[in-house]
Amino acid sequence: MTATRSVLAAQATDFPRWYQDVIAKAELADNGPVRGTMIIRPYAYGIWELCQAAMDRRIKEAGAENAYFPLLIPESYLQREAEHVEGFSPELAVVTHAGGKQLEEPAVIRPTSETIIGESMAKWIQSYRDLPLLLNQWANVVRWELRPRTFLRTTEFLWQEGHTAHVSAAEARAYATRIAVDVYREVIENMLGIPVVVGCKTRRERFAGAVNTIALEAMMGDGKALQMGTSHELGQNFARAFDIGYLSRDGQRELAWTTSWGSSTRMLGGLIMVHGDDAGLRIPPLAAPTQVVVLAIKDENAEAAGQIADDLRAVGVRVHLDNRTDQPFGRRAINWELKGVPVRVEIGPRDQQSGVATVVRRLRASAKSAVPLAELVPTIVEALQADQTWLHDEALARQTARTTAVSTVDEAIEAAATGWATLPYDVIGEEGEDRLATAALTVRCLQRQDGTLPVEDNERGLTAFVARSY
Amino acid sequence: MTATRSVLAAQATDFPRWYQDVIAKAELADNGPVRGTMIIRPYAYGIWELCQAAMDRRIKEAGAENAYFPLLIPESYLQREAEHVEGFSPELAVVTHAGGKQLEEPAVIRPTSETIIGESMAKWIQSYRDLPLLLNQWANVVRWELRPRTFLRTTEFLWQEGHTAHVSAAEARAYATRIAVDVYREVIENMLGIPVVVGCKTRRERFAGAVNTIALEAMMGDGKALQMGTSHELGQNFARAFDIGYLSRDGQRELAWTTSWGSSTRMLGGLIMVHGDDAGLRIPPLAAPTQVVVLAIKDENAEAAGQIADDLRAVGVRVHLDNRTDQPFGRRAINWELKGVPVRVEIGPRDQQSGVATVVRRLRASAKSAVPLAELVPTIVEALQADQTWLHDEALARQTARTTAVSTVDEAIEAAATGWATLPYDVIGEEGEDRLATAALTVRCLQRQDGTLPVEDNERGLTAFVARSY
Repeated sequence: MTATRSVLAAQATDFPRWYQDVIAKAELADNGPVRGTMIIRPYAYGIWELCQAAMDRRIKEAGAENAYFPLLIPESYLQREAEHVEGFSPELAVVTHAGGKQLEEPAVIRPTSETIIGESMAKWIQSYRDLPLLLNQWANVVRWELRPRTFLRTTEFLWQEGHTAHVSAAEARAYATRIAVDVYREVIENMLGIPVVVGCKTRRERFAGAVNTIALEAMMGDGKALQMGTSHELGQNFARAFDIGYLSRDGQRELAWTTSWGSSTRMLGGLIMVHGDDAGLRIPPLAAPTQVVVLAIKDENAEAAGQIADDLRAVGVRVHLDNRTDQPFGRRAINWELKGVPVRVEIGPRDQQSGVATVVRRLRASAKSAVPLAELVPTIVEALQADQTWLHDEALARQTARTTAVSTVDEAIEAAATGWATLPYDVIGEEGEDRLATAALTVRCLQRQDGTLPVEDNERGLTAFVARSY
Repeated sequence: MTATRSVLAAQATDFPRWYQDVIAKAELADNGPVRGTMIIRPYAYGIWELCQAAMDRRIKEAGAENAYFPLLIPESYLQREAEHVEGFSPELAVVTHAGGKQLEEPAVIRPTSETIIGESMAKWIQSYRDLPLLLNQWANVVRWELRPRTFLRTTEFLWQEGHTAHVSAAEARAYATRIAVDVYREVIENMLGIPVVVGCKTRRERFAGAVNTIALEAMMGDGKALQMGTSHELGQNFARAFDIGYLSRDGQRELAWTTSWGSSTRMLGGLIMVHGDDAGLRIPPLAAPTQVVVLAIKDENAEAAGQIADDLRAVGVRVHLDNRTDQPFGRRAINWELKGVPVRVEIGPRDQQSGVATVVRRLRASAKSAVPLAELVPTIVEALQADQTWLHDEALARQTARTTAVSTVDEAIEAAATGWATLPYDVIGEEGEDRLATAALTVRCLQRQDGTLPVEDNERGLTAFVARSY
């Protein structure tokens, strides 16, 4: 373990450096050659595939269907919705030449797809029978980043973006809420083991063109907040700009109410920063491409190690067998620790003689125990389940411990230097948000005092969560 | 059925028009606003998701891991491999402006990722222990198309591209062959029900930068060929250009041997053109997002229809329940026929009284039969299995019937006007390929006389498949 610490910066000393070190040493990602882009390496991509599958299943359960819309959008589309174009203009990448010629109209690479999907919705929706229209796509998007940071803010990232159209504001709101709560929160809390606060954004922090933005905010290991997903009510703004209308049951022409919602590879950044420690990553079992690694210490243990791996696979555990006995055992163990594989099973000559294997639980400070071979499978299955919850609860305890209830903006500025502050939004207001901004703080989201979502715009008596953020 | 024919052009009269009509009426895809791009609608995307899952599983079985590389590639990367840049230059889309400024070096949108992945391979590979390196990615690519056609040639398309590095030419060849045969042919023949001829391209038709290209060619309903997937041996061309080297077991610095291979949304175009008929699509059960649609004819049949749907779902059949009894039954039936759902179950008042439902097998010219309710589930399960094979065999019979063995280039030109011609490549040669080109024909691929792949470059005694192609 001492050896591991030496390859990573210590979290307490330099958290940003630790973050970059983990990404490099655990082989999660590299920088791409075009500024701000990233290469997602197989180990991190495996985590992403598990996130995708979990999100996709829940999105389909919520009735949305997958489709695919073009990467390239005519520049004029973005200009149709005033706030939207203002929000995205500085971030656009523009294709001006193609097929050896200058294009008549430049095309932008989608920064998000409200506009191009809005155009299709207008064609596909004729009557109330066509509503709700519930679409989702898995895609890459490009937003030119001035201060890129791997997974958190990259020029290109992968995400899903949902786009729906409804007959009423109430139905649109209910759907946007359902996605935030039943899809995003479920996956982020139960699979990634990351507790989140679900609330609404202030007007200042809303998505460009939205009338309401629901956000899921998580506390990172350094006390900062990371937005893990957002779900927007767009009112009739995009419906008006793209003429998304329908004939109602009584034959009237009406405008639809639309929503959009997204979650991205940024979640991987959250996973690293919530669960990682000075020895490297810690991946919750449900999100781990490799849940258990079985290490043969010597050649003579290879067969026993293979048997253990087979036994675990037979009960559905994702196992990797490490039989590289020509490489130093210590280096291999440290490497798996760095990669945050939840459980390590080590079997050496002495273990095998005693009929045991050493089980190392990475998520609980690498606690070690000798387990009789006959009890190995049930012991490990139980450990994976217990440690999934353990990791979540540990993160929740930190979030609770580092969140301070205060009553003035000045106190909020002080408390948010190391964690989160909560206080009544009524004492902040738009003027208070300006003051927070000067201290590099923002209102992350607003909740009612009972933890539920606000319903009215400008509702009084709301609690604001104030924090530094990524 | 008569009604259906009227909404589509007849295949025999105007096959290209029929193709566009099916795509529109079955709600498969729309044109995007930027020339040559397409919007993949949920019904077609559902087919693509099934293809993806089947391909992905087999790619992983072949040992490759998924990763993700950036969309944007510095222009200079493509120029490092001479043939490659020559092959792709006319098709590139170029980002010249981003973040409100002109870029110092323009970035191209990937037309394929050999170059950017080659750069990473050079970093990740140090010694023979790091080989083989087997990577795959699911991504969008952009190639500016002068004559776009939905699914077949679009400016943007979705695909998987595999990229591998090996210690020897023989190992690279074996892997490229394995992908063509065990991944592509398996999925295309057994899932999409499309028979293919697997052969090597002539020098003239190879991928830009490859030393050998293995292609899978299928015969469409109009007798033309469509390339359904390709797997390339790149020799050491990209290894040399990107310095993909390694220390061998005896400490020598060596260059790696690389491969690349891809399959794309073009397969959906093949599916339409191989199996479709004058009434619309016909989707093989394994590729059908909806395998069975259950239609209640009247309101009073809704409950019975729901029960049938539940019974089928319980045995793992993908079912859609159509209870839209407020819409004309005939129109609904025609719509499902157009969409090529393999089996339709219709239940009306008279059926229900007699304890039967009407089963319509779309893939066998919509053959109808009344089936007692108690026998419905096993009858349908059996029909789905049998019709999967039936559809493949029907396509194979057509391919066989429309392939003519000839012995001169002139005869090949005549035979390939309506189907495929086979003849010894030795009588064609590079000069013959020029003559074929003047008749808009190409050598699609080369096989040994026993149907296996050639091994030597310029091997004698090979059979050429000559055809018009998409």
